[in-house]
Amino acid sequence: MSILDIAVGESLPPLTRPPISQEQLRRYAEASGDHNPIHLDEEAARRVGLDGVIAHGMLSMAFLGQFITQQVSAIPDAYLTHLHVRFNGMVRPGDVLTCQGTVQERTRTNDGREHLSIACRIENQNGNAVTSGEAVVSLPQ
Amino acid sequence: MSILDIAVGESLPPLTRPPISQEQLRRYAEASGDHNPIHLDEEAARRVGLDGVIAHGMLSMAFLGQFITQQVSAIPDAYLTHLHVRFNGMVRPGDVLTCQGTVQERTRTNDGREHLSIACRIENQNGNAVTSGEAVVSLPQ
Repeated sequence: MSILDIAVGESLPPLTRPPISQEQLRRYAEASGDHNPIHLDEEAARRVGLDGVIAHGMLSMAFLGQFITQQVSAIPDAYLTHLHVRFNGMVRPGDVLTCQGTVQERTRTNDGREHLSIACRIENQNGNAVTSGEAVVSLPQ
Repeated sequence: MSILDIAVGESLPPLTRPPISQEQLRRYAEASGDHNPIHLDEEAARRVGLDGVIAHGMLSMAFLGQFITQQVSAIPDAYLTHLHVRFNGMVRPGDVLTCQGTVQERTRTNDGREHLSIACRIENQNGNAVTSGEAVVSLPQ
């Protein structure tokens, strides 16, 4: 189903990611410049009271952004305009994350476009939300 | 100045990033799993009407998140709870981005903590906002 004709209350096809790996966190640190040792070094994570290394919050935020942009990238002149994220829980190496989204609102705007508001969240393998929020997508008519 | 005692209306020290490089976009694609060719391949970007390769929107969002979390990472039990981002403009290889933030509100909450609301934005080397938004940080008392 295309995001162009999905109805309010309907859900996007969920997207399950490969398990988070320590190697991925190392790569993410390098690419983003965020070298905080709680994401890279077991000892350093324990010293600040964590059970072990946790993933960058921005990495799950990025997954949510991609989940939405993958829906619009095939549509010319459609784009993600806003992303609002709440950080609900920690993500650890080995976790399997699934991105979900449900259309909440479709609004015609004065510029002759349509805004689609999508409630989205990421759950881990235990069904706990680790990240939740809203995305707004702007579509041509 | 620590984020613990910064007053409403005051700004965080701005953070200027090294210039965006094509190599960084390649690494970011690998780490995040977002291999959309508009971020990697000049030809592919032109085919969809762009002037050339653009950076992942999620990369500038990540910079904004890091800019805030760097302020809180030295404070035990302080964390980023919300990040709301608007995508205002495109980022290209060679662009130099500066993250800025101004405290808008400090609120005591019922759980005996303090919430700090920060208006933040990223400007490029021409002074144009590429990303703007709000962050909420939760601080122990």
